[in-house]
This record gives sequence, C-alpha cells and structure tokens, in this order.
Amino acid sequence: MAQAPVAIIMGSQSDWATMRHAAETLDALGIAYDARIVSAHRTPDRLVAFAKGAKAEGFQVIIAGAGGAAHLPGMAASMTPLPVFGVPVESKALSGQDSLLSIVQMPAGIPVGTLAIGRAGAVNAALLSAAVLALQDPALAERLDAWRKRQSDSVAERPSDEG
Amino acid sequence: MAQAPVAIIMGSQSDWATMRHAAETLDALGIAYDARIVSAHRTPDRLVAFAKGAKAEGFQVIIAGAGGAAHLPGMAASMTPLPVFGVPVESKALSGQDSLLSIVQMPAGIPVGTLAIGRAGAVNAALLSAAVLALQDPALAERLDAWRKRQSDSVAERPSDEG
Amino acid sequence: MAQAPVAIIMGSQSDWATMRHAAETLDALGIAYDARIVSAHRTPDRLVAFAKGAKAEGFQVIIAGAGGAAHLPGMAASMTPLPVFGVPVESKALSGQDSLLSIVQMPAGIPVGTLAIGRAGAVNAALLSAAVLALQDPALAERLDAWRKRQSDSVAERPSDEG
Amino acid sequence: MAQAPVAIIMGSQSDWATMRHAAETLDALGIAYDARIVSAHRTPDRLVAFAKGAKAEGFQVIIAGAGGAAHLPGMAASMTPLPVFGVPVESKALSGQDSLLSIVQMPAGIPVGTLAIGRAGAVNAALLSAAVLALQDPALAERLDAWRKRQSDSVAERPSDEG
Amino acid sequence: MAQAPVAIIMGSQSDWATMRHAAETLDALGIAYDARIVSAHRTPDRLVAFAKGAKAEGFQVIIAGAGGAAHLPGMAASMTPLPVFGVPVESKALSGQDSLLSIVQMPAGIPVGTLAIGRAGAVNAALLSAAVLALQDPALAERLDAWRKRQSDSVAERPSDEG
Amino acid sequence: MAQAPVAIIMGSQSDWATMRHAAETLDALGIAYDARIVSAHRTPDRLVAFAKGAKAEGFQVIIAGAGGAAHLPGMAASMTPLPVFGVPVESKALSGQDSLLSIVQMPAGIPVGTLAIGRAGAVNAALLSAAVLALQDPALAERLDAWRKRQSDSVAERPSDEG
Amino acid sequence: MAQAPVAIIMGSQSDWATMRHAAETLDALGIAYDARIVSAHRTPDRLVAFAKGAKAEGFQVIIAGAGGAAHLPGMAASMTPLPVFGVPVESKALSGQDSLLSIVQMPAGIPVGTLAIGRAGAVNAALLSAAVLALQDPALAERLDAWRKRQSDSVAERPSDEG
Amino acid sequence: MAQAPVAIIMGSQSDWATMRHAAETLDALGIAYDARIVSAHRTPDRLVAFAKGAKAEGFQVIIAGAGGAAHLPGMAASMTPLPVFGVPVESKALSGQDSLLSIVQMPAGIPVGTLAIGRAGAVNAALLSAAVLALQDPALAERLDAWRKRQSDSVAERPSDEG
Repeated sequence: MAQAPVAIIMGSQSDWATMRHAAETLDALGIAYDARIVSAHRTPDRLVAFAKGAKAEGFQVIIAGAGGAAHLPGMAASMTPLPVFGVPVESKALSGQDSLLSIVQMPAGIPVGTLAIGRAGAVNAALLSAAVLALQDPALAERLDAWRKRQSDSVAERPSDEG
Repeated sequence: MAQAPVAIIMGSQSDWATMRHAAETLDALGIAYDARIVSAHRTPDRLVAFAKGAKAEGFQVIIAGAGGAAHLPGMAASMTPLPVFGVPVESKALSGQDSLLSIVQMPAGIPVGTLAIGRAGAVNAALLSAAVLALQDPALAERLDAWRKRQSDSVAERPSDEG
Repeated sequence: MAQAPVAIIMGSQSDWATMRHAAETLDALGIAYDARIVSAHRTPDRLVAFAKGAKAEGFQVIIAGAGGAAHLPGMAASMTPLPVFGVPVESKALSGQDSLLSIVQMPAGIPVGTLAIGRAGAVNAALLSAAVLALQDPALAERLDAWRKRQSDSVAERPSDEG
Repeated sequence: MAQAPVAIIMGSQSDWATMRHAAETLDALGIAYDARIVSAHRTPDRLVAFAKGAKAEGFQVIIAGAGGAAHLPGMAASMTPLPVFGVPVESKALSGQDSLLSIVQMPAGIPVGTLAIGRAGAVNAALLSAAVLALQDPALAERLDAWRKRQSDSVAERPSDEG
Repeated sequence: MAQAPVAIIMGSQSDWATMRHAAETLDALGIAYDARIVSAHRTPDRLVAFAKGAKAEGFQVIIAGAGGAAHLPGMAASMTPLPVFGVPVESKALSGQDSLLSIVQMPAGIPVGTLAIGRAGAVNAALLSAAVLALQDPALAERLDAWRKRQSDSVAERPSDEG
Repeated sequence: MAQAPVAIIMGSQSDWATMRHAAETLDALGIAYDARIVSAHRTPDRLVAFAKGAKAEGFQVIIAGAGGAAHLPGMAASMTPLPVFGVPVESKALSGQDSLLSIVQMPAGIPVGTLAIGRAGAVNAALLSAAVLALQDPALAERLDAWRKRQSDSVAERPSDEG
Repeated sequence: MAQAPVAIIMGSQSDWATMRHAAETLDALGIAYDARIVSAHRTPDRLVAFAKGAKAEGFQVIIAGAGGAAHLPGMAASMTPLPVFGVPVESKALSGQDSLLSIVQMPAGIPVGTLAIGRAGAVNAALLSAAVLALQDPALAERLDAWRKRQSDSVAERPSDEG
Repeated sequence: MAQAPVAIIMGSQSDWATMRHAAETLDALGIAYDARIVSAHRTPDRLVAFAKGAKAEGFQVIIAGAGGAAHLPGMAASMTPLPVFGVPVESKALSGQDSLLSIVQMPAGIPVGTLAIGRAGAVNAALLSAAVLALQDPALAERLDAWRKRQSDSVAERPSDEG
C-alpha cells in the first residue's frame, strides 16, 4: 500500500472533534492520510520522533491542530523540512485567539501556514494540502477542480426561509 | 528562460517594504519569482485576470501580502487552484490585527495559508513556498536544508552585551 | 414593475438569519429589494457580474452582509460606484470581531459604510439605505420620519418588571 | 451661492488633522461642504441645534468624526433623518479601537455608516458621500467615475525599490 | 415626600435586567431612587430634558446604564453638573467591551465614573452613589458601614463543596 | 488651615506625569488636595494605614491612579467608605488596557468609579470629585459651572488649519 | 500533624469550582494543603493577616485564584516572601481576560507566577507548587516524575471516534 | 565552583535586552546563573538537550524568555521536572500579547509560571526564582527580605515634579 502523503497530528483526543473535518475533506478528495495524537507538551519525545522522521516516513505535508498555547505546529515545523499547516483549535476561555496567535506568529525562519480557527480551518488545511499535492498529481488537480466547481454550483441564487 | 514558480503580489507599493523580505528570501534560495502590485480594491480587474491566469502562466505558488481589510489573498485564492500564502502587512492603527483576521479567518472551502504579521511573515511565506516546491525539486530541497542548517548554526550559545 | 432600488447580498444561506432583518425593515418602510446569495469566495464570477452590473440593473444602494474574513462588501464596493453598506455577521469563534474589521478597515479609495455586528447592523443598513433613498423621494422621507417617530414614541417612560 | 450638501463635523480642533482628508477629497470631487466643530460633550446645545436643523439648512449628508468615547456621529444620527457617516479618529491609548466601537455598535433604529479608523476613513467618508449624492447628480457621477478610474490607473504594475 | 436623590436611567427596557441590581442595592441601603428609560438615540429630546433638569428636579447623583455604542452616560454628563456613574451593560456580540469603552473613554472635561460590566457594575453604581450621599448624611454613612461589615462577615472561612 | 478634601494617591513617582493633571484641575477649581505615593505592592502597610485612616484624616474623596496590574484603587476602596475614583495610567506594552481592566472590573460590593486611560482620566477624576464636593458646597458648584461654561465657550465654531 | 506546605486561597466561594482542581491535583501528588477564602476586597484584614503570617504558619507556597479585577494574588505577594502562583478564574463578561491581566501584569518588584485561565491553570498551579517543593523532597520528586510519566503514557497513539 | 542554580534561556540574542534585567536582579541578590540562547524553533536539538539535562546539570529553576509565538518556556517545561518561569518578550506588532498568550495558556499537565510582559517580567522572574531558592537557603531568604525592605523604603512619600 502506498504511503499516505498527509499526516494529521493533534495535541489531544479532544482536538479530533475539530480535526476530523480535515480527515473527512481529504477522504472526499481521495487523499490518504495518517491521523495521530502527538502532544508537544505531554509527549515531547513522540513529537521529536515524528517530526524528524516525517519526511523519511514518506509524508509530504503535515497538518497540525492544537489549542491554547498551541506549540505543536511550530515545533513540528522546526524539525521537518516539509510544509506544515496549522489549525488553531477553539479554546474554552479565549475562543481560539490564544491558539491562533500561538500558531501564526512564528518568527522568521520557521513557517507555519495557518488556517482559520476551528472547523473551517480544518477543512481548509485539507484543501491547502490538496492544492500542494496537486502540483505534482494531475489527477488530484482534476478532483480538486471538480470539488471546487461543485462547491460553487451548490451556492443557491437566493436565500431561503427554510435555510 | 523558465517561468518563475512563485508570484509575489501585494495590494500597494507601500506593502513592498514588507514583501521585499519574501523576495530576498527567495533570492537566497535560488527560486525565481515575479513581484506585482495587484490591488483587490483599486484594480479588481487586474486581480481577476491575474488569479484566473496564474496557473496557466506557470506559477505554482502565490504569495499575497496586504494590510487592513486585506482581501487580496482570499480573493486570489477564490480564483485559482494554486496554493496561496498570505502575509498580513502591519497596519497603522491596529498594528496588523485587522490584516491578520481578514486573511486567516477564511470560510471553509477557500484556504489561505497565513503567516505572521509583517517582515517575519514575508520571510516565512518564501520559506513555506520553498518547502512546497522542494517536494518535487531535490536540488531545492538540499538548498533549503542547507539554509535551515546555517540558520541553526548561526545561533550563538550565549547572549552578548554587544548584541 | 419598477426595479427594486436596494440589493441585499450575503455570502451564504446562513447569513440570511441576520440579513432578513434588513429585508423586514425595508418591507416596513415600503422599499423594494432583491435578496441574493453572492459568495465572494465560492462564487467570485457571480460577484463580479453582480457588482459590475448593479448600477445598470437599476439598483441604487447595496447592502452586503458577511462573516469571518468578510470580503463581500469591500469587493462589491471595488466594482460599483453605488453606495455599499456592510453588515458584519456574527462569527462563531470571534463573535464578529473578524467580520467587523474585515469590512470596516477598507483602504482609502473604496468606502464601505459599516453597521453594527449582527441583527442591529442589518436593521440599520436598511434604515441607512432608506435615508439615502429619501433624499430624492419625499414620500419615503415621510414614511421614514413616521417610522422614527413611532420608534421614539414606543419607548416606555419607566422600566417594567414584566419587561 | 448654493447650499453645501455635505456637513463635516468633528468633536474638536485636533480631529481636523484627520478630517481635513475628507474635506480635501470633497474638494477634488467638486463637492461643497461646511466644516464645523461640534462637540457632543462640551457643546451639547450646539449639537442639538446643528443636528435638528441640518436638513432644513439644506445639508444632504453628514460626515462626523470623533475619537475615544465617540458619541458625536451617533447623537447626530439620533436627531436627523439625513444619512450620517462616522469616522473613528485614532485615539492615543487605544489607537482608535474605542472610537470605532463607540461609533459602529449603534443599536437597531439609529444607523451610522462607519468608515475605517483615521485618514483612510476620512477619505472614504467623502467618497461614500459622493456616491450618495451622485445618485441624483449625473455630472457628479461622472466625476466620481473619473476619480475612481484615475485611482485604478495610478496603480503601478510592479513594486519599485524607490517607492 | 422627599425627592429621590438618585436617578437610575437606562437606554432600554432590556437594560433593566442589569440595572435592577442597582435599584435593589439602593433599596437595601434605604436610598430612594427614580428609575426611568431614557434612550440617547431613540429619545434624544427626553435625554436633553432629563439631563438639563436633573439638578433642578432635586437629584444628586445619576446612575446611567447602557450597552453597545453606549452614549447615554456621557451625554447625560455633558448636560448636568451632577456626578454621573456609568454601568456598561453586557452586549451580545462583544460581551460589553463596546459598552465599556463607549462609557469610560470620555474626553477630558466631561467625566463619567464607570463601573464594571453587568450586574456587578450596577450593584457598585448604587454603592458608589451611597458613598457620595453619605458624605452629607451620617445616618446613611452608618447604614453603609453596616452593609459593608455584613458583607465582610458573610465571607466564609473555607470553601464548601456544597457552595 | 482646613483639611484638604481630596487625596490623590498613585502607585509610583512615574504615575505623577499623569496624575498631576488631576492636581492641576483641582487647583483650577480651588479645591485643596494632598498628593501621595502609596504603592499597593511595594508599600502595602502604607496603603492599609492610608486607606483605613483616610476618612478620619478628613478626606472626602480619593483619587487613585495606577498602571499595569493596577490594584491601588480597588484595594483603597476595600478599606474606606469614601468614594474612590480610579485613573488607569497608560502602561508600556498594553497601553493601559491592563490598567483599565484591573481597575474597572471590581466585583460587586466594592466600587471604584473609573475614568479614562491617561491624562483625560486624571482631569476627569478631578472634575468628578468636584461634582461630588459641589453637592454640599454651593460656591464650588458655581466655580464648577463657570469652569464648564468656559470650556464650552472655548470650542471654536470652525476648525483652523493653524490648529 | 505536619503543617500543610501549600495554601490555596481564593476570592470567593464561587472560585472553588475552579480551584478545587488545584486541590485535587495536590491530593493526587500526596501534598497537604489548606484551602481558604480570602477576599482582597471584602476581607482585606483577613488578607493582611493571612499574607503576613503565611511564612510563620509554615506554608512554603501560596496558590491564589481570583477573577475580574483579580487583586488577591498580587496583594498576597506584596506581603509575603513566599512564592505566589496566581490562577485567573474565568470571568463572565470578559472570559478571564481581565483576571489574567490583573494577575500577570505585576510591576517589577513583586512577582506572581501566573498560570492559564480556569481549570488548566488551577491544575498547573498545583503541579508548579509540586515542582518547587520537590526541589527539597526527593520522594515528592519521584511522585511527580511518576505522575508526569503516567500522563505521557496515557496519550493514545491515534484519535478515537468514541473520544 | 558551585553550579549556578538558575538557568536563563532565551529564544534569540535580541531577547537579551529584556532578559538581562533578570540577570541583573539575580546578581543583586547574589544568585549565580547561566544565560544561554536556546531557540525552540531554530535549535530544537539544543532545546531538547538543555531541557532534558537541566536537572542533571544541577539547575534548580529555569527562567525562559521568548516573544511572538513563544514556545520556549512551554517546551522546556515539557521536558524537565524543574519549575519553569516564563517571560513574554514584547513583540513588535502585537506588543507582547502574542508572547503572553503563547506562554501562559499552557494545557493542564505542564505548568509555566508566567510573569509580566517585558522588563518587569524579567525582573520578577528573578525575584520569583529567588523566593523559590530561599525556601531552602536562609541566607538568601535574608537577602531577599532586605532587598524587599529596601524597595519599600525607597518609595517616596510624595511625588516630585523633578521625578
């Protein structure tokens, strides 16, 4: 079986409620992925092992979701040359503002491409990964185009009171 | 001459003070780019023409910088299947908080991989583009690894009062 | 039948829960309107067609509602000389703070008259449109005055525990 | 001499540094205006007299700029049926965030079309007033179109290091 | 019957859910008050009449509560020499942050003594009014001291799981 | 010599740059005051002694200014029945947002009437103190009315380019 | 019986819902504690007595939780040489942002080691206290290591849909 | 020579301008320290080696300063049982609000005792470290008491215009 090109990592089981939307979007686009829990704080060794080995494992893109003082995306990015896309999970007290700033405000040198807070960000991390992979996969490019076209076509002309 | 794989677009001449750091980083990595001013608000036709034609022109990645109600990255992303990386330019009154939210909080369906506010974000947009392009360019992957290694090696062991 | 002078556009069906308050207020003032879904991100072609054709269609005022990275009002404003009034729809994680900044912080050159976040903003976009149209429609001016007078008269003198 | 259609009011002399950009933009579009200092807090009687009499004086649009706890636009709007456009002046400690919220978050019933914080907002208040007045003034509509076209044409294709 | 020394005014019936806590606290301290709805925006004439007449009516302190773009406390203060205490009512989208800034950030010249957002602020506006009135009313000073002592005495030594 | 009715306390010498505006305003109104440095954190004993003794010393109103985690106004209020007015001093990193929230968000039971951040707040704390003292001092009430009238009269009709 | 090394103090009974998580964590680590309600505002004398006597009572670490204008941790720190760890309790309107800033932004001279808003902060205040106490208690150091190891071991490899 | 009990680590040379205030405060208290640059992002291996070895090296407390997406304190805490105190360095665009949230909002399980943004936080990280070390070092406890007493004594009674 071919290696999954996308790794979805998240800081805890509770992040899965958000990150599963990335998984479902990848499913819809026919992109294989491997979803794992990697806590920057509670399992730093697992983080180091994962990030340092991700390229050798065959991954091409890493999607990392975390909330609060969200260090997972940035720390993964510090230990892999692969593109890392970060999803700020909505936190309880600060509604993901802490997650967003902890992920996006990376210093020059180590990039994390950051998506929106919550579900939209998870979906979009998958779509952005697809856009990256499609650069070398014409069939995927076609599937992505079709997905986008269906999305456009599905927008109704007028609002519905039943909506 | 081969087509530049990276387009750097920005909303106005004044954004160049930030976005040139993306250009310089791409230069350092030996990646060709084309830098253009494309204002979502003042030149919407140019935006549509650019975004719809970017893939056919041969671009593979788009870096888009804008400030305030920063619509350029998201609108470009709505009209191209290419990966778009957004750089929030620091705005005067709100220090780029408006730029950041206008770029990163995209709805599900149209992703923009967002980097940090200002210079660091511009540098990192270039590095993230390099990471994407390196997936299919082993020589670039080596240059990127070398760049990262030099960066790590350049970190002094101890702080200096002359620093 | 005379052309409706007001267009109400919104980014998605879900925005209708907010924007219907604009529609109801226009109804109360006897102002015809046309409500459409125009997604800046998912239907950019529809946006371009609508905005460029709005004046020729006979619209005089555009009310645009959107949430999150809310680009619809500003992008419409970039492609029409008509006055555009923006309504920041309350977003999930950031309660409409992202919507507000994405709409109001437009650069010099392309204005969007922005109203309050949510229902109040939708009602007020309708009232502001009425004030604009009333400049050339004395009968509407009288209806608007009457509406405002009723509003003032309806304010009780003292708070009620049953309130 | 014909009555100026636009009133520019501001809370204090110090707001003129911002609001003069509205005046200059109206000048460029050939729209007459009357600029006055009307402090909601220090001259409430002047505010009442101005707002209640503005329509009878012949004004068609009111541009109101204020900073901090900026009550001028909303209070003017409460006492006139004319459209009121608010400009949040950048405040010292909070950079105009207080001005913005004090102006834009009006309750349902009394609208203020709010522009961006600072100079851009002042320019855009003038442009939005022009768009409103142009609905009944074809010559102004042409001047506004020309102004917008010049704006679009003035956007350079590429950023300049001398910029 | 003696004139009530405290006026409690609020922008709408819905503010009473918050402001009744001011009333109840005044009741507990044996201070008479008059509670009225005075909307700065919907009933500006009532506001002017109230504020200009408040001292002559015999009021000594004004408690004003409002939410969103909360102009009532500051506008009342601009038209009366009496001390005005402002209560930011919690708003829907922004949780009272707009109310707070609209009330507290008054320019030099017109003060509003601002209390906390919501119920705590309403209670405290009553207590602060009591402290002001107690300066000339020794019996009230004693009641206030007793109230504060009871409050201190009611604090349990240890937390209770039944709490 | 009569006891000064107003105490101005502040957390450190550096707060005097802000709080002297309270002093100067009291001077202008002919109100005596006593200005002291009382640090809640560095001199807690002095705080306890001051606050507990303030009423017996003959003070009638306390103006307290502090910045950052600004505990001085609230802690003074917890130990005196006198009205306490708080001035949030502008802090370096957060521009006084921390000062404002630390002062205004007092729990129900212990009020602090809070003024604006910085100089305006200091001026207004003096004016609010004057309004309180004027309730029992007709001569002061007249001076305060005159001060307010002069303020209103000093507002120019039109903005000046020399302003 | 040996003196408890940790004091858990909180501003009110309602804070116990948060602070009990500190207590439970200390229980799990076998560290004795004494939990008390000490309100900075409602029981300032109790605060002074507690803080000044805490070292003599035998406490080694103080955990202080409070919400809103949260003065308890900083005021305790001003009157004891013991390390003080602050827990910002989530407040109603501002979700603990006021609590956080009121606790963490202490001026140079009086430190409060501040933890996260809410439950996580309470748990971590206990763990940080344990880390401090473990410096002189090898048995506790072992228990803490074991606790941390169990925490790491409990992180599942993959997310579960049942999670 | 005895091992320094305190490690001061920081993300980059530029953080030294802030963190040297921690060093100077430790100097004033006669506490040895070792100051090192450890970048979580640019030198992750150095971070792992440092954090895992810190206890064995003989350190007892770690002070970690970083700005922006500040991951250093939390990542160090994830790999050492020693107490970690975090200093949010003031960042350019967001004034340290990103640094603060990235450090303080740690999830339950891995604590970082966080101090104020900037210089005050650096000074206080040193004082808090001293308080921790003083628990087992009576001579240091005396020096710390003396330092605190000098600090209290140095607070002038009255503000000075020369201040």
